[in-house]
Order: sequence, then structure tokens, then C-alpha cells
Amino acid sequence: MTSPAELYTTHRELLDRAVTATAARDYWSAYPESPSKSVYGEEAAPTGDRAFTSLLGQPFALDVPGAVGSVSTERSPYGIELGISYPKADPLALIAAARAATPGWRAAGPTGRAGVAAEILSRLHARVFELAHAVQHTTGQAFVMAFQAGGTHALDRGLEAVACALAATTRLPSESRWTKGQLELAKTATVTGRGVGLVIGCTTFPTWNGFPGLFASLVTGNPVIVKPHPGAVLPLAITVQICREVLAEAGLNPDVVTLAAEEPGDGVAATLATHPDVRIVDFTGSSEFGDWLEANARQAVVYTEKAGLNTVVLDSTADYQGLLRNLAFSLSLYSGQMCTTPQNLLIPRDGIDTDAGHRDVEQFAADLGAALDKLLGDPRRAAGTLGAIVNDGVFARLTEAGTAPGVVHPSTAIADEQFPGATIRTPLVSRLDAADEKTYTREWFGPVSFLITTDSTEHSLRIFTETVRAHGALSALVHSTSPDVLESAREAALDAGVHLSENLTGGVFVNQTAAFSDLHGTGANPAATASLTDDWFVAGRFFTLQSRRPV
Amino acid sequence: MTSPAELYTTHRELLDRAVTATAARDYWSAYPESPSKSVYGEEAAPTGDRAFTSLLGQPFALDVPGAVGSVSTERSPYGIELGISYPKADPLALIAAARAATPGWRAAGPTGRAGVAAEILSRLHARVFELAHAVQHTTGQAFVMAFQAGGTHALDRGLEAVACALAATTRLPSESRWTKGQLELAKTATVTGRGVGLVIGCTTFPTWNGFPGLFASLVTGNPVIVKPHPGAVLPLAITVQICREVLAEAGLNPDVVTLAAEEPGDGVAATLATHPDVRIVDFTGSSEFGDWLEANARQAVVYTEKAGLNTVVLDSTADYQGLLRNLAFSLSLYSGQMCTTPQNLLIPRDGIDTDAGHRDVEQFAADLGAALDKLLGDPRRAAGTLGAIVNDGVFARLTEAGTAPGVVHPSTAIADEQFPGATIRTPLVSRLDAADEKTYTREWFGPVSFLITTDSTEHSLRIFTETVRAHGALSALVHSTSPDVLESAREAALDAGVHLSENLTGGVFVNQTAAFSDLHGTGANPAATASLTDDWFVAGRFFTLQSRRPV
Repeated sequence: MTSPAELYTTHRELLDRAVTATAARDYWSAYPESPSKSVYGEEAAPTGDRAFTSLLGQPFALDVPGAVGSVSTERSPYGIELGISYPKADPLALIAAARAATPGWRAAGPTGRAGVAAEILSRLHARVFELAHAVQHTTGQAFVMAFQAGGTHALDRGLEAVACALAATTRLPSESRWTKGQLELAKTATVTGRGVGLVIGCTTFPTWNGFPGLFASLVTGNPVIVKPHPGAVLPLAITVQICREVLAEAGLNPDVVTLAAEEPGDGVAATLATHPDVRIVDFTGSSEFGDWLEANARQAVVYTEKAGLNTVVLDSTADYQGLLRNLAFSLSLYSGQMCTTPQNLLIPRDGIDTDAGHRDVEQFAADLGAALDKLLGDPRRAAGTLGAIVNDGVFARLTEAGTAPGVVHPSTAIADEQFPGATIRTPLVSRLDAADEKTYTREWFGPVSFLITTDSTEHSLRIFTETVRAHGALSALVHSTSPDVLESAREAALDAGVHLSENLTGGVFVNQTAAFSDLHGTGANPAATASLTDDWFVAGRFFTLQSRRPV
Repeated sequence: MTSPAELYTTHRELLDRAVTATAARDYWSAYPESPSKSVYGEEAAPTGDRAFTSLLGQPFALDVPGAVGSVSTERSPYGIELGISYPKADPLALIAAARAATPGWRAAGPTGRAGVAAEILSRLHARVFELAHAVQHTTGQAFVMAFQAGGTHALDRGLEAVACALAATTRLPSESRWTKGQLELAKTATVTGRGVGLVIGCTTFPTWNGFPGLFASLVTGNPVIVKPHPGAVLPLAITVQICREVLAEAGLNPDVVTLAAEEPGDGVAATLATHPDVRIVDFTGSSEFGDWLEANARQAVVYTEKAGLNTVVLDSTADYQGLLRNLAFSLSLYSGQMCTTPQNLLIPRDGIDTDAGHRDVEQFAADLGAALDKLLGDPRRAAGTLGAIVNDGVFARLTEAGTAPGVVHPSTAIADEQFPGATIRTPLVSRLDAADEKTYTREWFGPVSFLITTDSTEHSLRIFTETVRAHGALSALVHSTSPDVLESAREAALDAGVHLSENLTGGVFVNQTAAFSDLHGTGANPAATASLTDDWFVAGRFFTLQSRRPV
């Protein structure tokens, strides 16, 4: 047995460094993002591959308290047979188990819990190749992206949440002395969790979006029930398996973390989220269910990340080719199935000034289409960028968008030689006018974007602010060579309540945020009530209770 | 004009010290609590007295945007004529004014706003004698208590909120640099307020309970509408007057802070609290309206401090006389009209062991009654401790409690020679059995307490946990010489979600909490969703928005 305190000692250097990084906001990462042999050694990739393959067609090895039968609900967007089954959850049994595990978890204290969390992250990292395959074959992310976004970057986001939670729960001293003249008191402050935490996973980023809530709730003293999307169970099942293993080895009740797998339509998320004992809900997914949770999970603090109208304001540029390359990649990465992929590209009717001369809207549309075709011209490289279409909903929207008259870059199918059954499509770009707001104020999650003509950049900025205030956004981008326009764009982004990227023409993309530096989501617009990871994200998960006595 | 930045420079040493104190949690106070001449000089008291007297019978000098007529709603619990009138608020005009004032307030930045807040506190302190009279003649607190709880301690709580908000809004650097290989980004983080703040004042502690929300919202970048209780307008009107004066002198729009005075029954609090632009609500008062706000002000973050069943668990003591003196004072201070006054005193049926021998329940009741009579035997000193009954609701409950058969210490009237019109009453103590939960699970705000016989200390602790979990509490006290019982009481308090005091027999009382050391309220039981002042209390009031650009 390795106690929580011992695990804290083991990982203390990493945790201290992580806490420092959350305050500095410069570049820092604890988990190397390159899956190359030079970093992970010769054996890591084949071992991970074998580990993943051995899971296929089998019941997944996981104890779940009170499980009733099993479910098998996943299908790979790459067309391979998965056939993995999981214990089917009984929601009330999970809640009872979580409650029973709470006192011991509270007693472990903030540093002990952070030690356990760091050990869990370390073991997840040791299985990162296996995890990457699991992410690839549930989400449709291409392997390298699954390794990064679903593996190492998710671990960074998890560690960031651990660090923020550890800092917040140790900000007040656990023991203090109060002396006022002759009066002297000894005081104790104890962190107690809010109650049972529920993490509702999504189908596109089960780990990247799931880890922050999981680890923030854990370190602040709460047990957590992990409810994966039926389409992406495996990455979170591996996570829960490791959590329970580490908890048990540390002498703690493993029911601090459990898995709530279900059949599609069982409604377990809604049942759990509205139970009186569930006091924290983390959700990533559709605006519809997110809004429902915010309105109905009244007994809980609800952290949501939903969807929105990610916007690009095109005014002018000093690097037109860079702009096109960068934007084409942003639209293509994981087939636009990121909550941060740009949807609405606003461009003045008169066109934009560039270092390659003035470009009218028609020319810009053609140039962007050409940049997409160049990026995606080689099917093999294209597949590595696009990944696969995750589900029929995305495919249906893409098909619907393809019937519109203004399509300037149609979506085409790409074949993947490794996975012939994969559904891979290039992005569609369609032209609209500012007046077509009925179309572009709807969210078209997937590889669908609109090039929208406006009266002027000022008009673009107004549409940006108004649509994001009303419908939300997780990202925004402006291209301009004018300091005045950039300043106006910054003010517009503050008014809209969204983070802003400016003039990205190189290797940083608007859809990417870096743990320990970029916040993800703001809380200030309808797309999210959470920001990864700020004080608000962790402060709602615990209470500080004091006792005091004369000395 | 003195700019916000200059005000920050002026007050920087104080602010730095205050931030340090919020982390250390030892004794610290910025505003001397003794109203003596040796501290405040010969002239302070008479000047404050004259300033207060000059307000009587006059329209209060305060601009309120869009005011419609005036209201005059206060009556002194000490029986003197007040006759002060205030501009009557038009809620929509106040919201429009607050919104118009927001951009300039955002631009002042965290340190500028903290500078303005510190200047406001400084000017409130300069008028603390006047403020104390205002508190005395609206709440019924005796003068010295009004000077402390309504004056200097309220200022300490205000400064604590400023410090917590300043620390939270400056935790992330406003400028940072991100370098990853060849990629380099400059990043800016801007704090933006959540929206219009609303502070709903109470009639017993308008400043002590009002300042934390006011200053936390201000420093985090929000305009604030202050809605005083119609019975206690003056202390907050003085506050708003000073806020507007400081804002204007700093070149800012004074509508960052406005007053919403109303006739009783106008329902302005409900109108404002549910307006889409009001995004933060701070409330102190009845559980009924607090629960209503939590359920209905859905567009806002709602911080409430309501009421509960403050409990004392009597097991044993090594200082029986100290216990009796301390408890008698806690029941008597401000006639039990504190949200922290003990109501339910749980005692085993077999009595308790003390340094003065075993005491059965009847003896204990008699001894507590004698301690109350001794404390309150001299009418002049009694008036100074008891203060006056604030309103008819308290009086009605006291009358109702007096008709019960188990009264062991009846409430009696005390005459005040300085204020013959004052309504002053001693505390009532009534005996109940553990089975009489219908009576003691109701909150009897005012000088009414119950001595409740239980089967054992274990039974007492169970009742303590169950009733506080269900109905809430803001304070709890245990008396025991047994380390095991104390440990059980600490666990029970953690389970109940309430702060605990142990064996208070000297000059520290369960109803008092010290800013910068004791948290007030926990959020962990139904009596409050807020804790003064933790990260949660400030983190919900702002967002951090980033922008980033290649270097």
C-alpha cells in the first residue's frame, strides 16, 4: 500500500511545478506530445497497439457497484469492429457507493488527494498509446491527434485542474492561531467536498473535456461518477479503471470513482444530474442538453461547455498565404468537429487588402478553396488531418449544407488505405450574406463553414458581438493590419465575452488552446458556464469549514 | 481629480497588508474598534453626533438616476423621530445607468478599482461615528455595538472582500508570453465583470452584511445597485453617497453605485433580482425570500445568507461559571437578533459534569437563568448589551414563545434612560424535549432559545447534524472536556456543514466572527450559499477574457 501522503511526496515536484505554471501562463507541458520512438522508446507504440487490440470483443475489466448486466454501444468511425462490453450502471447504486466512499476521501486531505490524482495521471500516461487508440476508434480523431488531444494534452488539462484545485484548497492554512490581547484561539480549517460529482462525457473529446471536471472534483474532495457518451465509452472506462486501481492501492475505497455506462436513450445522465445527492455536474456536449442541465440540475453546481458560433473577422492581412494556410487547416482539423472550429467567416462586401493585393469576396472564396485543396490533396495526409466523421448527425448536417445554392467549396469523400470503412470528408464552405442570419446563427457542428459578406469590418464586428452574445462561441479570430481595427476587435470580443486570436498565420491555430496558458471557454457567453481552468471552475466544488477553540 | 491608479498607489500598503491577512488568518484589523477619545480624538464623537442629527427630518443628499419622488420609511427602535427621505428608485432607470457606467469601470482595472474601494472605506471610516448612529437608530443595536459591528468590523469585512477580489482578479498575469519552439505568442488577460450587481440589505446588519457583496462586486468590475431594507436605509445611503463622491472625484461615472430606496411592499428587490441584466445578487435576510431568490433569479449568481438553527451541544465543562457567563452573553447580545445567536441548546437528560459538580437539567436551567439575570441586572448595562427590538416580527415571536408551558427564563422589559421610547427585552429560555422538533426546527429569530433534553450527547450530536443539514445554521458550539466528544463534534459539524466553536468560556463568543480570520457562513448547509470571504464568493463575479497574437 502506498498512502495518499506518500503519493503526494512522490509527485510533489511535478505538482509544485504545475501550480507555478497555472500562475505564470507561459508554455509548459508535463507530457511529451510527440508519439515518436525517440521520446517514448521502441516498445511503447506496439505495446499500446497490442493492449488496445486485446480489449476488442471482450467484456471490459471493470468493477461497478450494483451493475445490472452489460452494454456494448460503441462503433468505430474508422469502421473496425469494437465489440467491447461494459457493466451497465444502476444510478442509485452508484450514488450510494459514492456517498459511502466520501468520508475516507475527505480524510485524505487536499495534498493526499492531489497525490492520488497525480498517480492516476502518471498511469494514464504510461498507457497513452492504448488510450490514443481508444480515442481514435470512438471519436474518429486521426491517430496522432488522438495521441495529443486525447492523450497528452488531455493529461495536461487534467494536471492543470489538479494544480488549480490543490492551490485553491490549500490557500487558507489548515491550522492558524488568532491572538487579540489576552484572547487566543487555535483554528482549524477543513476542506469538504460539495457532494457527489457527475462528469458527463462527450463523443468527440471524452478525455480532453472530461479530465478537468473529473480531477477538479476529486482533488476538492468529491467522489465522481463518470457517465460516458455511449459512443465513446472506452477512453473513460480506461480512466476509471486506473482511478479505481490507484485508489485501492492507496488503501481508499475505489468507489470514489465509478463508471455509469448505459444504452443510448437510457437517460442516466438526466437521472443522475437531478438526484439530490449529486451536487456537481460537468457536461460537454450539445447546447440543448447543456441548457436543460443548467435549468434542471438545480441542486448542483453545473459546469457546461456547449456549442456556439465561432467567428472569424477578415479585415486585412500582411500574410495572405499564411492566412489561407492557417484557416484551411483550422477548418479541416478533425473535420471541423471541434467546439472551437470557425463557422462564420465575416468579410466586407468590398473585399480585403492583403500583401498580395486587394482580394474581392469571390477571389477570397476561390483562394480559400484552393488552400483547402492543396492541404488535402494527398489522400493519406488528408486523412491524418481530417480524421473520420464521428456520427450520422454530423453527416446529415454536411449533406444538408451541400444542397444550398452558395457552396463555394463542396465536401468530398476521402479514402483511407489503412481503414477502408472510415467515413472521411473534406470541409464545405458556403457563401451567405449578412442578411441570411437564419442560417448562420444556427450551429453547424462539423465541416461546414460560411463565408458571410457584410457592409464593412465595423458591420462584421457588430455581427460578431451580437451573434456571440446571443448564441455563444468558444473561439474568435480577427485578421487585420490596422491597430485601430485590432483594438476594436478586442473590445468587441470583451463585449461578446469570448477569447480572441489575432492574425494567426503560422503554426498556432484558433481551434487550439494550450493548458497552463490559454483558458478554454469563458463563462461570459452562452456557449459555456465553465472556463478551463480558472478559480470559478474549482471554487464551486468545495467548502471550507472552520473549528476554533481557546488555547 | 485623483485617478483610480493614484488611489491604488495611495492605499497600496493597506491593500497589500489586507491581502496578506486573508491568507494568514491570524488576528488583523485595519479599523480600531474602540470609539474612545484616546483612539479617535476629542472631536470625533460630537462631530459624528452633530452630523447624524443634521440628517434628521431632511431629504438625504443623494442623486439617484431617474428617481421618481421620495420615500421615508424608517423608524428608530429607540423611539426617536427620524423623518429622513430618500429619492425613490425607478428600477429600470437604475439598471440603464449601471450599464452605461460599466465600460469605464471595466477600464479602471483590478488595481484601480481596489484603489477606489479603499478610498471609499477610508471615507466611511472618517464618518464612522455618524455611521454608528445611523446603524443604531435603524437596527436597534446599542451604540458601542453599532460602532463596532456596524462600523469598524463592517469596514474590516469590506476590506477583506476588497482584498479577496483583488487577489482573485490579479492571480493571472494581465500580460504573458508563450514560447514553444519557433512559435511565440503575446497574451493579454482582461477581467470583465459578470454584469450588474444587486445588494439587498437587511434590517439588522445593513453594513456588516452589505459591504462584502458591494465591495466584492465593485472590485471585480461590476456596477452595483444597493437595495436597502426600508427599515434600515440610512447606513447604506451614507455608503452610496460616499461611493458616488469618490467615483466622481476619480473621473468615473458615479452611477457605478446607486441606491434603490422603496416603499415597503414595492417589491423592487424581486424586480431587480430577476432582470436579465442583473447578473449578481447578494442577499441577507429571511430564508423565505432567500430561497425565492435562489429559485427565481436564474440569470444571476445568487449569494445568500439566510437563517438557521444555531446549536449548542452541552456535554461537560471544566469552567462552569465561564460557560454560563459566556452563553448568557451570547443569548443577550443585541437581543439575540444576530444570525449567529444560539437557539437550540442540547443537553443530555441526565445532566452534565462540570468543575462545580454534576448539574441536572433543572439546575442548569436555573443556573443559566441566574447568569442572565446577573448579566442584565443593571438596566443601564443591560440596555448596552441588549440593544432594542428591531421590529414587530421579533416582538410577536417573543410573545408567542412566552405563552409556552416550559419557559424557564421569561423575557422582561428594560427601560433605557437615554431613550425612553426604546423597546428592550431580555432573552427568553424555554425547556423542550428532543421530541418537540416541531417547535425547535423552526427558526425563532430574536431573543428566544430552547433548552432541549436529549438521551445522550451522542443523541445531541445526531440531532445537531440532522437539523442543521435540513434547516441550516450559521454557528455551532460544543462544550466538553472529553477529547473523544470534541472529535465527534468536529465530525458532526463537518457533516452538518457548519463552523464550530469549542469550549468558549472567556471573551470570545459563538455569535462573533472576525474578518480576515473567521469565515462567516459556509455554503454547505441551507442557511447560506455564501461564505465571507472565500474564493467562491468573489470568483463568480467576473470572467477572464484572453486575447493572443503572434510576436
